[in-house]
Amino acid sequence: MKKLLFFLYTMLGLTYFATAQNADEKAILKVLDDQVYYWNKGDLNNFVKGYWNNDSVMFIGSKGVVYGYQNTLNRYKQSYSDTAKMGKLSFKILHVNKLSPDTYYVVGKFFLKRSVGDAEGHYTLVFRKINGEWKIVSDHSS
Amino acid sequence: MKKLLFFLYTMLGLTYFATAQNADEKAILKVLDDQVYYWNKGDLNNFVKGYWNNDSVMFIGSKGVVYGYQNTLNRYKQSYSDTAKMGKLSFKILHVNKLSPDTYYVVGKFFLKRSVGDAEGHYTLVFRKINGEWKIVSDHSS
Repeated sequence: MKKLLFFLYTMLGLTYFATAQNADEKAILKVLDDQVYYWNKGDLNNFVKGYWNNDSVMFIGSKGVVYGYQNTLNRYKQSYSDTAKMGKLSFKILHVNKLSPDTYYVVGKFFLKRSVGDAEGHYTLVFRKINGEWKIVSDHSS
Repeated sequence: MKKLLFFLYTMLGLTYFATAQNADEKAILKVLDDQVYYWNKGDLNNFVKGYWNNDSVMFIGSKGVVYGYQNTLNRYKQSYSDTAKMGKLSFKILHVNKLSPDTYYVVGKFFLKRSVGDAEGHYTLVFRKINGEWKIVSDHSS
């Protein structure tokens, strides 16, 4: 079963060498898994649903801090204006650390396989369980 | 009193527009304040004491993830091998968010005023209260 899960994760572009994930970890990985899925369909409107739909959500990137769900979506749409720029996304999850019952900290690598030049980097995410759903409340990517 | 504190913080290179900081926030800002102080004395051995002295501490920078206190110190010593490269550090704290009673998430900007060229960027820090002391357990700087 573990081998099958690992195979499926790898197929979906999401690798995480986990032992005994709990329900919260699984739900968080599912959010990231969905992000990879939607990105690779060129669907940023659904990709961004991994983030908290709130003005307080933060994206910290090369241009500083972007606040708010809509601005975060706009930033992605500006930076990745077509599927060539988006390329094929995959994640390598390095850490999924519980900070409190409703807060996790995730560290990972992202890879973009692209005809216009590959890109890669690291992200640190704060996930919070809000109304029963795990959402990214802060994303620092570099 | 607030004006005096603001003046002192600014003098120390640490700006934070705070209202009614609690004891934990004050202790966390003191850690950052000490870091600025030691950096500007060219003292990386004391600067690094803001980090958790543990193999699990993480520094995520331009070269990926560095694990462990000693490796974090070594990275600083390699990247900032003399006081010209270190320059004068100041912080602008943007957010000090409580994630749990023993965990805070801090977002800020750093500025290095240097003869070899100024530098600046953003950091996101996870602070944890460990044995009564607030320590950085993860630092993502870019």
